[in-house]
Amino acid sequence: MPKVLITGAGGFVGTHLINELKKSPENEIYASVYKATSDITTLVDQTHIIAGDLTDYAFAESLVKSVQPDVIFHLAALSVVHNSASLATSVMSSNATISYNMLEATKLYASRARFIAISSGNVYGAVEDTTRPVDELTPLRPLNPYAVSKVTQEMLALQYSLSYGLDVVILRPFNHTGVGQTRDFVIPRLAHQFVQIEKKLLDPVIEVGNIETIRDFTDVADMVRGYVLASQKCISGEIYNIGTGVGHTIAEIIEILKSLSSAKVEVKILDKLVRASDVPILVADASKFMDLTGWKPQVSLQDTISDILESYRLT
Amino acid sequence: MPKVLITGAGGFVGTHLINELKKSPENEIYASVYKATSDITTLVDQTHIIAGDLTDYAFAESLVKSVQPDVIFHLAALSVVHNSASLATSVMSSNATISYNMLEATKLYASRARFIAISSGNVYGAVEDTTRPVDELTPLRPLNPYAVSKVTQEMLALQYSLSYGLDVVILRPFNHTGVGQTRDFVIPRLAHQFVQIEKKLLDPVIEVGNIETIRDFTDVADMVRGYVLASQKCISGEIYNIGTGVGHTIAEIIEILKSLSSAKVEVKILDKLVRASDVPILVADASKFMDLTGWKPQVSLQDTISDILESYRLT
Repeated sequence: MPKVLITGAGGFVGTHLINELKKSPENEIYASVYKATSDITTLVDQTHIIAGDLTDYAFAESLVKSVQPDVIFHLAALSVVHNSASLATSVMSSNATISYNMLEATKLYASRARFIAISSGNVYGAVEDTTRPVDELTPLRPLNPYAVSKVTQEMLALQYSLSYGLDVVILRPFNHTGVGQTRDFVIPRLAHQFVQIEKKLLDPVIEVGNIETIRDFTDVADMVRGYVLASQKCISGEIYNIGTGVGHTIAEIIEILKSLSSAKVEVKILDKLVRASDVPILVADASKFMDLTGWKPQVSLQDTISDILESYRLT
Repeated sequence: MPKVLITGAGGFVGTHLINELKKSPENEIYASVYKATSDITTLVDQTHIIAGDLTDYAFAESLVKSVQPDVIFHLAALSVVHNSASLATSVMSSNATISYNMLEATKLYASRARFIAISSGNVYGAVEDTTRPVDELTPLRPLNPYAVSKVTQEMLALQYSLSYGLDVVILRPFNHTGVGQTRDFVIPRLAHQFVQIEKKLLDPVIEVGNIETIRDFTDVADMVRGYVLASQKCISGEIYNIGTGVGHTIAEIIEILKSLSSAKVEVKILDKLVRASDVPILVADASKFMDLTGWKPQVSLQDTISDILESYRLT
């Protein structure tokens, strides 16, 4: 029975990853969470939920020591993108510390485990050549301290691979969304507004920033299927983009929402909502990952958005 | 009068940089130090020494606000290379926080200042192609948390250039040494042992790790001259290696020491002193910097080592 440890297991992606892993009954799943919530206790055996703070090395050590995992999906990270001095420095310090603690504990107590380090397509940031999707050799030009912290986490994982031969795989997921993602992200935020308008709880006006921004959206179910494939097939010490390779503007997202909703919505473009340091285009060249693993996205953007709308209609 | 602010001004490189800047009397020099020492008070006007902790944003802000610098040489960083959980995470957190605080304060209160971010040739780490010197496009493969923290500092500086148009130049100095460097570094450590043996204070045996390790050593006086040239001539948003382009083995260093010393020394090679994650070869291709600025090293390695020996003979 392979023992699979997920850090940040209580989050949006973590819970979807647990569901994916449960499709193979031989997986023995352990969930590391900051605090145990009712969500997680319905998904994982009570005795396999370990609550604690990964910025504390002693907790990370006892976690790895007690679980003795064969595979670690390291998802835990602070993901605040807002820029204030105290938030930015705590995101950078926490994310570096969490990754260091997990890597060091893995080196000492589970040195043969495969360690899947979850980075982000955000590390590419201000891409210079926007005429084609970005591959893994594209220079990193991060645009906020959160993206910088993901570079730090990658570099640490790479360091443990180079210095100690740890079996590390680094993944750079591009945008992914689905039921359960917080409304800090664009698709859930817009979908929630549409449903509020359907329910007559909101005026039929939606204010957005730059609707020309282009992103590569993957359904979270496809994304976590990719993570599991990575744990089985990717090459140690290597970095892989995961994304569909297809870009969509925010305007297109709004069109899909309109086609799936009875709400008659007026869209207002407000300059003050345009973020100064936003990347205009971010689309993945994930051919390295696709060619190696055979991964292809299966859920259409239309279906993803439909699922999210439905989830808000039911609440 | 250009106002020049140096962070980490009390350190080995900081004090040499102050001496270099004082050669141009128009420079108005401000020294940010963690604690004011007698060394720094002999170099800089008392009223231009500002003591405080740059991991505290409020201090960084008041520093930049009060000095209103035209040029900032950001040298301040923890440089512990030993690997323990508490040290590694505090080096990474502190170095990220110090750089963030300085960049954020500069953006807000000295947005036209030129910001010279001092990184390190250590970011290259486990270079794959060791047949030629490394240029700035060589992939980063850091081998310890300190080197990871320098990547983080670079990425933050780049982010402030990309997001806010801050006038940032990133320098990657390779090894540099000279009078005043601590004996944590190889040349001062060996030179000190030779002088101890000359003075009959030590048995004539020196224990070393891998004497085949190759490094690119620049005299600190040449290095800080490079920093000043960078502040005058380098292109905003760009990254530059600084180094001689010539590699020397530790065995060659020992031969130079032998030729400059009356001590008859036996060299013992101890496996336990070989660091597992040491880089075998690290030599700079600094042609980008040299071609732009005209910088060339002027002090020979022989003269550098001779100066260091002399400094120990006098103490």
